[in-house]
Amino acid sequence: MSADELTLLAAEIRDFLVAKVSRTGGHLGPNLGVVELTLAMHRVFDSPMDRFLFDTGHQAYVHKMLTGRQAGFDQLRQRGGLSGYPNQAESDHDIIENSHASTALSYADGLAKAYALRGEARQVVAVVGDGALTGGMCWEALNNIAAARNPLVIVVNDNGRSYAPTIGGLADHLSRLRLNPGYERVLDVVKDTLGATPVVGRPMYEVLHAVKTGIKDAVAPQAMFEDLGIKYVGPIDGHDVAAVESAFRRAKGFGGPVIVHAVTRKGYGYRPAEEDEADCLHGPSAFDVETGKLLAAPSVKWTHVFADELVAIADERLDIVGITAAMAEPTGIATLARKYPERVYDVGIAEQHAATSAAGLALGGLHPVVAVYATFLNRAFDQVLLDVAMHKLPVTFVLDRAGITGPDGPSHYGIWDMSVFGVVPGLRIAAPRDAATLREELREAVAVDDGPTVLRFPTGSVAVDLPAVRRVGTVDVLVESPRKDVLLVAVGAFGQLGVDVATRVAEHGYGVTVVDPRWVRPVPAELVTLARDHRLVVTVEDGVRTGGVGDAVAKALRDADVDVPLRDIGVPQDWHPHGSRAQILADLGLTAQDVAREVTGWLSRLEEPATHPDLATRA
Amino acid sequence: MSADELTLLAAEIRDFLVAKVSRTGGHLGPNLGVVELTLAMHRVFDSPMDRFLFDTGHQAYVHKMLTGRQAGFDQLRQRGGLSGYPNQAESDHDIIENSHASTALSYADGLAKAYALRGEARQVVAVVGDGALTGGMCWEALNNIAAARNPLVIVVNDNGRSYAPTIGGLADHLSRLRLNPGYERVLDVVKDTLGATPVVGRPMYEVLHAVKTGIKDAVAPQAMFEDLGIKYVGPIDGHDVAAVESAFRRAKGFGGPVIVHAVTRKGYGYRPAEEDEADCLHGPSAFDVETGKLLAAPSVKWTHVFADELVAIADERLDIVGITAAMAEPTGIATLARKYPERVYDVGIAEQHAATSAAGLALGGLHPVVAVYATFLNRAFDQVLLDVAMHKLPVTFVLDRAGITGPDGPSHYGIWDMSVFGVVPGLRIAAPRDAATLREELREAVAVDDGPTVLRFPTGSVAVDLPAVRRVGTVDVLVESPRKDVLLVAVGAFGQLGVDVATRVAEHGYGVTVVDPRWVRPVPAELVTLARDHRLVVTVEDGVRTGGVGDAVAKALRDADVDVPLRDIGVPQDWHPHGSRAQILADLGLTAQDVAREVTGWLSRLEEPATHPDLATRA
Repeated sequence: MSADELTLLAAEIRDFLVAKVSRTGGHLGPNLGVVELTLAMHRVFDSPMDRFLFDTGHQAYVHKMLTGRQAGFDQLRQRGGLSGYPNQAESDHDIIENSHASTALSYADGLAKAYALRGEARQVVAVVGDGALTGGMCWEALNNIAAARNPLVIVVNDNGRSYAPTIGGLADHLSRLRLNPGYERVLDVVKDTLGATPVVGRPMYEVLHAVKTGIKDAVAPQAMFEDLGIKYVGPIDGHDVAAVESAFRRAKGFGGPVIVHAVTRKGYGYRPAEEDEADCLHGPSAFDVETGKLLAAPSVKWTHVFADELVAIADERLDIVGITAAMAEPTGIATLARKYPERVYDVGIAEQHAATSAAGLALGGLHPVVAVYATFLNRAFDQVLLDVAMHKLPVTFVLDRAGITGPDGPSHYGIWDMSVFGVVPGLRIAAPRDAATLREELREAVAVDDGPTVLRFPTGSVAVDLPAVRRVGTVDVLVESPRKDVLLVAVGAFGQLGVDVATRVAEHGYGVTVVDPRWVRPVPAELVTLARDHRLVVTVEDGVRTGGVGDAVAKALRDADVDVPLRDIGVPQDWHPHGSRAQILADLGLTAQDVAREVTGWLSRLEEPATHPDLATRA
Repeated sequence: MSADELTLLAAEIRDFLVAKVSRTGGHLGPNLGVVELTLAMHRVFDSPMDRFLFDTGHQAYVHKMLTGRQAGFDQLRQRGGLSGYPNQAESDHDIIENSHASTALSYADGLAKAYALRGEARQVVAVVGDGALTGGMCWEALNNIAAARNPLVIVVNDNGRSYAPTIGGLADHLSRLRLNPGYERVLDVVKDTLGATPVVGRPMYEVLHAVKTGIKDAVAPQAMFEDLGIKYVGPIDGHDVAAVESAFRRAKGFGGPVIVHAVTRKGYGYRPAEEDEADCLHGPSAFDVETGKLLAAPSVKWTHVFADELVAIADERLDIVGITAAMAEPTGIATLARKYPERVYDVGIAEQHAATSAAGLALGGLHPVVAVYATFLNRAFDQVLLDVAMHKLPVTFVLDRAGITGPDGPSHYGIWDMSVFGVVPGLRIAAPRDAATLREELREAVAVDDGPTVLRFPTGSVAVDLPAVRRVGTVDVLVESPRKDVLLVAVGAFGQLGVDVATRVAEHGYGVTVVDPRWVRPVPAELVTLARDHRLVVTVEDGVRTGGVGDAVAKALRDADVDVPLRDIGVPQDWHPHGSRAQILADLGLTAQDVAREVTGWLSRLEEPATHPDLATRA
């Protein structure tokens, strides 16, 4: 292909991406930024013999197009359709299925070691963003890659949106400066250009400065990568296919680890994305191609309710501070930052540091609120356990996107939190069912001063307020009946589901009590008291069944010698595909109809002999 | 105090530490290395107004002595005695209770931010070892510390044993080189000096090189710390109190983050420790002061059985490789490394990278065995979940020091693994009860090719082999009886306990079946079949009760509509103090006598009415 043909192809790819993602939603900005880079990878290397690893897998759309998956984009991220991340089942060209940042270099180190040990001459090429370099795993991996000295190409996709206004000039400037060393001057340029723009409470220069800690060494020829024996090539214009190809060819022949530093622009080539300085159309839902405006009418999300209530609390309490791991807007912490910029800390993609620096803030007399997606707090389990909980520190973790989320699929489902953080001594977990209880439970959480709290709620539009009939201790009774056949414990956002189940089960003549425990860890003693009066207890939760609220309630009953039969409903311990939240919940039997059928089945079987030797184990 | 008086005091402190630790056991080498450094900290800064944070807290003994706790050293790490780590209950001079590496800088960042926000003029001083800098958390913290620019002193305690042979001369050399820049030449010196000494399969120069990735930036004046605005002071001789004091005084007045790079020698001033190049008497049990030799007669540990069997397997299978996170000797992986140096990877104190690079090795066609203490795998939960298990990769995690360990106390107890990793889809967990089952289950684990496996066993001498009566499916029956009152599920090393309990319970006329499930996740279907024939199921495990094997068996029974009552015994969900393993188990009621009393109590109560409204919940 000639240079002109490549330019044309790149433009066609962008048109295709914009057209498709405008209908399905998906990750747009990052993929518009890696068109030329991905083209060059496929021209220089020989996938799947050579192995491509895209960190934070959402930047693999172009790679999918170039490996025969264009037709799949009509069902992108839809049930049964193309995954939004690399996927082994889709193509031999995909080897990892990853969405959490900063992992690709570690996979790459292992792969390169395996090929070296087995004597296979295969290239490993990992693409990692500048943002992901703020995660500690990258540092661990680079440390090992440098020591191992195996052939390995690390493509630093430097697309920081801090660069957006000036990227073209700055990239050129970086190149010139490199020839006549003195990286300090680059930082001076950046400082001059960006010094005054505030981002989440810190001057943009400082944010950039921190982000660039990772890039710095890649850019400054005198710094550590080359000293360690990691060859450095760059910086290059990531939108110049010829330049990228040339760099890749040099890297390919080197015989050891090489960093190729490509400066790219997120959203490149699509004006609405380029002009959207907030997030470059990072991951929009369906939008209008002409304007880039979202088609869906705005609605009030769980996130908004949290964000507004946090500001209201912060107005009253000076000790409240916020922490985000590079997701100020999506988690709502940006609302606090806009009002109290000095009270919000963006730590980068660094959940471990988010948790332990929160411990430090708490030791210093503050009450930090760490807002993070549920799927990401798993990365800081040890820090929450030992650094926060063992010290009995008042830190509140707010887990957005808990439970089944939908189009992002298995690696983004926030279904582990109630099980994993449920083992942490002294940690309390609340699961609000609607906007009113979210506000109330957030206030209860930040009032706790002798240990950590977790508040978890799902993605999407907040549920309609569902008032309680009465409150017993900390437990809300949602439905009562003179007959007491089954106690249905409906966790968090499943409150309405519980009420709907009760209606259906009552039609069979059974008496149903529905409760929302509000706080699920520790298990409220009132649940044990209520259980004694019923013939069956059923729990239903938006989390993995194993070790979840069902198991915890069952244990509380056993510990009180209350042997009322219990059945627990939740997300099976398995990997569940992407789709809409409603579709996946329906697939898992988490609908009022299915749950009601289960409950009535159990109630009728309770009247039979206690054990059923002929029933197979349902694992 | 004059210089001579300080020198005398330092010598007295060393004599005291050697005398005390020789009787109780404890962390010796690291503390001998920080005597002058700690003296200087207390002379320059004003603890507890200024805050001292010792990373990997075992280097805080001198600090304890200087804050009025000398008398406690007679009961160091013993039940009710002085903790081996900083401890808030012991002294206002301790603010964190930490033993996992690489966390102190994150606490420090949070504390410094809190003091800045609250307008408190307090200094934060964090001491971090060069080894801990290989952990990604330090990178995340430095990134944030640099951006925040708060006053904060980071003392890099550079005691890498790789330096031991030449440390004095090298430290001086570093200082001279610093004045006339060119850090490359330092590395050349190191290369010349250490090039040929093999360490766990890699030339020592390479190991050092990797470790120094962290230090490098501290040493090279042109590198990132100073560029970022982290002032650098050093390198200084960490055994010269005057030099350290002078550096601290400069750091104290700086008004922003400062790194003080102190070169120290692990085991300094005590000949047997200095001459012990393997680990500088890092953490011995009681020893002879004259010779440094351990007093306890050597015994065969669980670790040795694993280490030898792994080599036997590796003899047969070329795809077996080993990974350690800076603990080759304590985990036994060094045995493999001595025979097959090219098949073992030491990744540094970097459990996240250990897990994900293992995923990479598995993707490359190998079967990695990751040997790690149980308490440390928690640091890689997300990586085990998504990077290994979601990809269904054959990686075997061998968890040494699982369950109650003893003198290291709550942050080292390996009691979380069966709960936390038990939620991971497709992950299988084995818990051997003796040497024979350890060998057998290790072979079963590495034979699994469609997902991760975990093998977990406790600390100390391996249990006497306990043969099974028969095997049902994968379950070993240890005790049988014609009467079937209670099915006792004894997990792993509690096999013998189960047999002893059976003897006692049988004395009350009850029929007891004791089984060792061998594989506890997923729950063997045979347990459900066996449970149907009994009136009561009791589980007993060396792990936290919440989400443990008891909960998993209870769920398996419920899922099969088997409502036989179950009771579960294990470690309560709480923080448990240090002491000997036997003492702590006894304190928790995990003895044959206590368990037998519980079991007979439950059996007798089963004959009473099903529920007991007057019994309080036992949480």
